[in-house]
Amino acid sequence: MPLLVMKFGGTSVADLARIENAAKKVQAEVARGYDVIVIVSAMSGETNKMVGFVEGTSKLYDAREYDAVVSSGENVTAGLMALRLQEMGIAARSWQGWQVPINTTSAHSSARFVNIPRDNIDAKFAEGFKVAVVAGFQGVSAEGRVTTLGRGGSDTTAVAFAAAFGAERCDIYTDVDGVYTTDPRITNKARKLDKIAFEEMLELASLGAKVLQTRSVELAMRYKVRLRVLSSFEDTDENSGTLVCDEDEIMESKVVSGVAYSRDEAKVTLVRVEDRPGIAAAIFGPLAEAGVNVDMIVQNISEVEVGSVKGATTDMTFSCPTNQVARAQKAMEDAVAAGTITYDGIVVDSDVAKISVVGIGMRSHAGVAATMFKALSKENVNIKVIATSEIKISVLIDRKYMELAVQALHDAFELEKA
Amino acid sequence: MPLLVMKFGGTSVADLARIENAAKKVQAEVARGYDVIVIVSAMSGETNKMVGFVEGTSKLYDAREYDAVVSSGENVTAGLMALRLQEMGIAARSWQGWQVPINTTSAHSSARFVNIPRDNIDAKFAEGFKVAVVAGFQGVSAEGRVTTLGRGGSDTTAVAFAAAFGAERCDIYTDVDGVYTTDPRITNKARKLDKIAFEEMLELASLGAKVLQTRSVELAMRYKVRLRVLSSFEDTDENSGTLVCDEDEIMESKVVSGVAYSRDEAKVTLVRVEDRPGIAAAIFGPLAEAGVNVDMIVQNISEVEVGSVKGATTDMTFSCPTNQVARAQKAMEDAVAAGTITYDGIVVDSDVAKISVVGIGMRSHAGVAATMFKALSKENVNIKVIATSEIKISVLIDRKYMELAVQALHDAFELEKA
Repeated sequence: MPLLVMKFGGTSVADLARIENAAKKVQAEVARGYDVIVIVSAMSGETNKMVGFVEGTSKLYDAREYDAVVSSGENVTAGLMALRLQEMGIAARSWQGWQVPINTTSAHSSARFVNIPRDNIDAKFAEGFKVAVVAGFQGVSAEGRVTTLGRGGSDTTAVAFAAAFGAERCDIYTDVDGVYTTDPRITNKARKLDKIAFEEMLELASLGAKVLQTRSVELAMRYKVRLRVLSSFEDTDENSGTLVCDEDEIMESKVVSGVAYSRDEAKVTLVRVEDRPGIAAAIFGPLAEAGVNVDMIVQNISEVEVGSVKGATTDMTFSCPTNQVARAQKAMEDAVAAGTITYDGIVVDSDVAKISVVGIGMRSHAGVAATMFKALSKENVNIKVIATSEIKISVLIDRKYMELAVQALHDAFELEKA
Repeated sequence: MPLLVMKFGGTSVADLARIENAAKKVQAEVARGYDVIVIVSAMSGETNKMVGFVEGTSKLYDAREYDAVVSSGENVTAGLMALRLQEMGIAARSWQGWQVPINTTSAHSSARFVNIPRDNIDAKFAEGFKVAVVAGFQGVSAEGRVTTLGRGGSDTTAVAFAAAFGAERCDIYTDVDGVYTTDPRITNKARKLDKIAFEEMLELASLGAKVLQTRSVELAMRYKVRLRVLSSFEDTDENSGTLVCDEDEIMESKVVSGVAYSRDEAKVTLVRVEDRPGIAAAIFGPLAEAGVNVDMIVQNISEVEVGSVKGATTDMTFSCPTNQVARAQKAMEDAVAAGTITYDGIVVDSDVAKISVVGIGMRSHAGVAATMFKALSKENVNIKVIATSEIKISVLIDRKYMELAVQALHDAFELEKA
């Protein structure tokens, strides 16, 4: 029997009516001849309520107890979904993490999968059950304690089950109807993509298109699990949503697939840093330890001798989320006090945004950067920092030009055309 | 190390402040040198919410899924209680039913204990843990599914743990400060009892003094677990509350310990039932099958021949909860239709109340019934039905005299005096 994994997030199971709606989508797949593994999140708001309880009880909480508490919501949804499916005449039962068992590491609140033995669920399918409803986000450690995977972990649970059970596809039902060329709130020319490669989705997800959890896309890429993102709140069929798949499945890929943006970026420049071997490590080591997520890094070498600093100096610029700037400054001042680095000053620019164009077609096409820079130049948008990867070009610009830049790039790469 | 079981009900853990308050009571016992097993209920309202979810999803629900859903609240409280105790510097951890494991039968929603192996929890105490916080009300079946014990089951969990671990005492913290000679809302002469025998508590509990779940008292009596009922909301010490214990522990027992009442009783009389061997079975079999909880039964034999019924006839009177009268009538009509019984009519009196005097001292003292009837007669209260057991005398009277009767009996047996 072909097998499908279907995952429903918190807003898709927010109340009994929505659970019924989701159950109907499961029913349709059973009718098409599939055995189905359904992964469910907690009803929206429940996990936050539990986190609030834990944080209200203990500041430095024991992560094992945190996990025991916050995993409760998924168990509730799993039971209710199984009941609703039974009510529709479908043989279904719920599975809590320890019942499968979903074996994970003991890294509570950020556990990773060890393995998911198929025996128990396969035995139930063999008995005639059509649907296994599995509580997402949770697992069990070798010590027999409940673990969780970190926020948004239900996507990852879904992909892991799809890999373990050799599912034909893993359908992620959510509150958007797919992945778009850019944010439709910024331009109404934004177009839903039928297919997107794993690598592109990874760049778009980590750049702020928060449709799928990054980790779930990584896992899907590694195990070649075909992922489909589609809406819980619309009528859907085999062709709905966006398929996230291996690039081999995408016949005629465009050079650029999408334009992503991130509003909450800040640009930090250390002015006239002493330039010597090991200086990058002396700067970015302490930043990493302080939990600063450094994204782009640019270094300009200058050979002039100015001010207090003797010898060669360089300006070191990096970007990080706006709310981590204070932490970054503190880490740099501590490094100066410890004598590991010297600089003349820190310049922070918090009014910047990051714009990225992403596409696997870039690998084989030259001129993408030129097109991008020309389009921005035409709108008089000044580029402050540039960073590139194999399938992505990102720039930092003044935040006030963000929407304008997204629209200009969407036009320049003709993303409105299929 | 001496061991104590402490149980906190839903109102005692209704919010984070109350959980903290309960944790302080645990802390005090740890300070006195006890290892403690804490049994917790769900935060008040949570279980009802879950039951509502299940009933809103499925009419004839799968009890296995019902149990999976409604057991979630206890897991939450157990984790939060463990966190709060840790925050106070006490080595504590939570235990879900399957982790202990609390092995039960597979009778979902009304499971019974099979056994509670001590190994896992004892190993943690040996490691230096002082408190095991166990989710009440739940267990695990041989099939590895979550089970529940039925409403109020956390009391029973507490007693079962006290028996399994040889606890010195099982303290049930609730929203009343003990067991009273009668309901203090009816007479301000009601006095809190320091001690009460298991048998007396059973009669009082089943008669409507809803302090402890009947099943938990039965279990405590069988395993001679000393139970203490006391208030979560007051300062308490070793002498607080009421001790429910073996009668051997009660030196100078009064003849009567308490006066109980039940407002929601109805008296049903089948007029001129054919009197023959097996007639009682023919009447009360169908009532039991219809789920009618018959309490008192009185049969008056009459040898006269009246109306349609030939031969000897009898009037059969029984009492049952008011809300089961319709069901009882239906069961009797069905029995007539099936030809298994005949009678001339049914007379229902829904305006009655049951008053009971309870005391183990009755066994060795004559004249309790006489004192009771005299006290009621003095107030012109007419007695409709009388039933007696070894340690209890119950009467049905007009409901309007209920409070008067309770007060009169409380005075007659001088229950205000210690």
